Amino acid sequence: MAKPVSIQVWNPNGKYRVISTKPMPGTRWINLLIEQDCRVEICTEKKTILSVDDIIALIGNKCDGVIGQLTEDWGDTLFAALSRAGGKAFSNMAVGYNNVDVNAANKHGVAVGNTPGVLTETTAELAASLSLAASRRIVEADEFMRAGLYDGWLPHLFVGNLLKGQTVGVIGAGRIGSAYARMMVEGFKMNLIYYDLYQSTRLEKFVTAYGEFLKSNGEQPVYWKRASTMEEVLREADVISLHPVLDKTTYHLINKDSLATMKKEAILVNCSRGPVVDEVALVEHLKQNPMFRVGLDVFEDEPFMKPGLAEMKNAVVVPHIASASKWTREGMATLAALNVLGKIKGYPIWSDPNRVEPFLNENSPPPAACPSIVNAKALGLPVSKL
Amino acid sequence: MAKPVSIQVWNPNGKYRVISTKPMPGTRWINLLIEQDCRVEICTEKKTILSVDDIIALIGNKCDGVIGQLTEDWGDTLFAALSRAGGKAFSNMAVGYNNVDVNAANKHGVAVGNTPGVLTETTAELAASLSLAASRRIVEADEFMRAGLYDGWLPHLFVGNLLKGQTVGVIGAGRIGSAYARMMVEGFKMNLIYYDLYQSTRLEKFVTAYGEFLKSNGEQPVYWKRASTMEEVLREADVISLHPVLDKTTYHLINKDSLATMKKEAILVNCSRGPVVDEVALVEHLKQNPMFRVGLDVFEDEPFMKPGLAEMKNAVVVPHIASASKWTREGMATLAALNVLGKIKGYPIWSDPNRVEPFLNENSPPPAACPSIVNAKALGLPVSKL
Repeated sequence: MAKPVSIQVWNPNGKYRVISTKPMPGTRWINLLIEQDCRVEICTEKKTILSVDDIIALIGNKCDGVIGQLTEDWGDTLFAALSRAGGKAFSNMAVGYNNVDVNAANKHGVAVGNTPGVLTETTAELAASLSLAASRRIVEADEFMRAGLYDGWLPHLFVGNLLKGQTVGVIGAGRIGSAYARMMVEGFKMNLIYYDLYQSTRLEKFVTAYGEFLKSNGEQPVYWKRASTMEEVLREADVISLHPVLDKTTYHLINKDSLATMKKEAILVNCSRGPVVDEVALVEHLKQNPMFRVGLDVFEDEPFMKPGLAEMKNAVVVPHIASASKWTREGMATLAALNVLGKIKGYPIWSDPNRVEPFLNENSPPPAACPSIVNAKALGLPVSKL
Repeated sequence: MAKPVSIQVWNPNGKYRVISTKPMPGTRWINLLIEQDCRVEICTEKKTILSVDDIIALIGNKCDGVIGQLTEDWGDTLFAALSRAGGKAFSNMAVGYNNVDVNAANKHGVAVGNTPGVLTETTAELAASLSLAASRRIVEADEFMRAGLYDGWLPHLFVGNLLKGQTVGVIGAGRIGSAYARMMVEGFKMNLIYYDLYQSTRLEKFVTAYGEFLKSNGEQPVYWKRASTMEEVLREADVISLHPVLDKTTYHLINKDSLATMKKEAILVNCSRGPVVDEVALVEHLKQNPMFRVGLDVFEDEPFMKPGLAEMKNAVVVPHIASASKWTREGMATLAALNVLGKIKGYPIWSDPNRVEPFLNENSPPPAACPSIVNAKALGLPVSKL
């Protein structure tokens, strides 16, 4: 950053200097920082991803804390720079922190925050949106309409699936997978098959109760089962959504063989992590099976797509927007700001990082706590009694 | 049709000659006709809409019945031609029959069939698909991704709505409107406000029971109310779906004033009839309010759009595909064929046109009845006792 850098400064005389590497949605996070005597500097450079050098320049000689993004490389260099500037707090505006070298942060005594607890429903709703868009071929139908190709109703034009009575398959039934499963079961009266290493008793309880609810109202019930293998889900489900964590065991979980196991007209949705799907094999499968459809929020070589994917009409592709609702993004900004603020003020760590409502309630001041610090134990930070 | 016309002929020696003006989805409808000694002729011309002259040429000198499409002009000329050829039966492959002059059909003694009972869920699922696509900006996000514009995650990229806890507004709570309302309430835990001239006690009962279900499972309930004016729905709802019939009272129901009544960031969905919305006013409103979004399946000047609509990023536009699921379209084809066949065979009229399951069950022969004849009374046709 030999060139000048654009920033927006709020409350210039604030005692603590807090930097956000990006403009973030909403204004509550800014107000909360200002109220606690922070000078807030927001980098407004028109550059999607800031480099390590860019961020070092932003930190300067005196900085109390930084709110950063998942796209930035928070390793030893940056934590050393932040520590030298007197900083003790960093927070990702994200629930994940693959971009953070937590050991380096520990070494420099910097707390690392993240923002769980606000992404579940928004992410599950995106998976549902992609499922429905793929099911009813919304993107290709929209393109056809805009191109002026529609010249009258035809019996065979963009025929898709009726979800009601079909089977939804969920691979990985944690928070997001379970929320998605319920949307599809309760919204569209689909039957459920799920695969997870652990039994999801809560999900099973809900789907059972919902089936009873339908029956007691004189309607066809819905059924669920827990699959003993992933193949069972692939074979039986009409719509399959992937919600595993990414690790060695789930890398290329969906590959040429698993695609071949699925129904020819199945729908596959991925809002988890790109490398869970072998994207080269997927492109080939989409070419060979025009009625197989896919909805993707994540990609193996993000921000890029594998060759051929952008040309496939039976794919819906969106740029990693699973958490992109106003409520969630403003919530993430607020939680990230409160992580940094809490550490600066010496507040303890909130006991349950997923119970975030008290921090997001706009009608009362947030608790005097850091909502979620991932290296609290390593740094020996006290936990809130609340 | 001075040129030769392409047709596909099944069972050439069948006793009754039945024409379909278009290829229709599935094969069951063909098999059912063949089993009852029909010769089936399917017009395979690559022309979206057949003219009256085209259809007269298809009918020829001897024709027992025709299955036609909503895009064709079935007036006095065609019914006279069909009657001259000995025909006594016509069926639209559609639930609507705006394209049919029923008085002319009565005059020539031709039964007019339609295909209710199979469109409800498929149409409601399209309204839900458009609601979610608009809510999460799926089409514009897909276009951005395919154009190679994505170069990294950003906090403000395609931020949309979280449906959970928002309010869905339904204008016209008949079969389709009610099915849609339930999808959004039960799938996404939205609250409901609806407007209809008649109280929808069935819908109210279900949403009340679902709220109790949530409460008894320790979750936040959902609420509903019946609005006393349409304006109340426009003012309060975050997502509004239109399901009225089209008549003089609903022409341009959504106009400049009603659009101005809605929230700046509301979502409007129309899967009913194009002229319910003043499309010129809508285009202007979309230009002035970039976060107002719309999902349209129907258009005022279908198959055309009003100037400017095709350029709006905050619109999702699809070519009248509300009934386009495999299950529904094959069901429509079967019901249309059985309407024509039933009249040829002298069967009575089925007593409840919406109770279609016995006709669609592939494991047993259909009832000896015409599923739905709209001018049965005028022609004095007997009603089935079943």
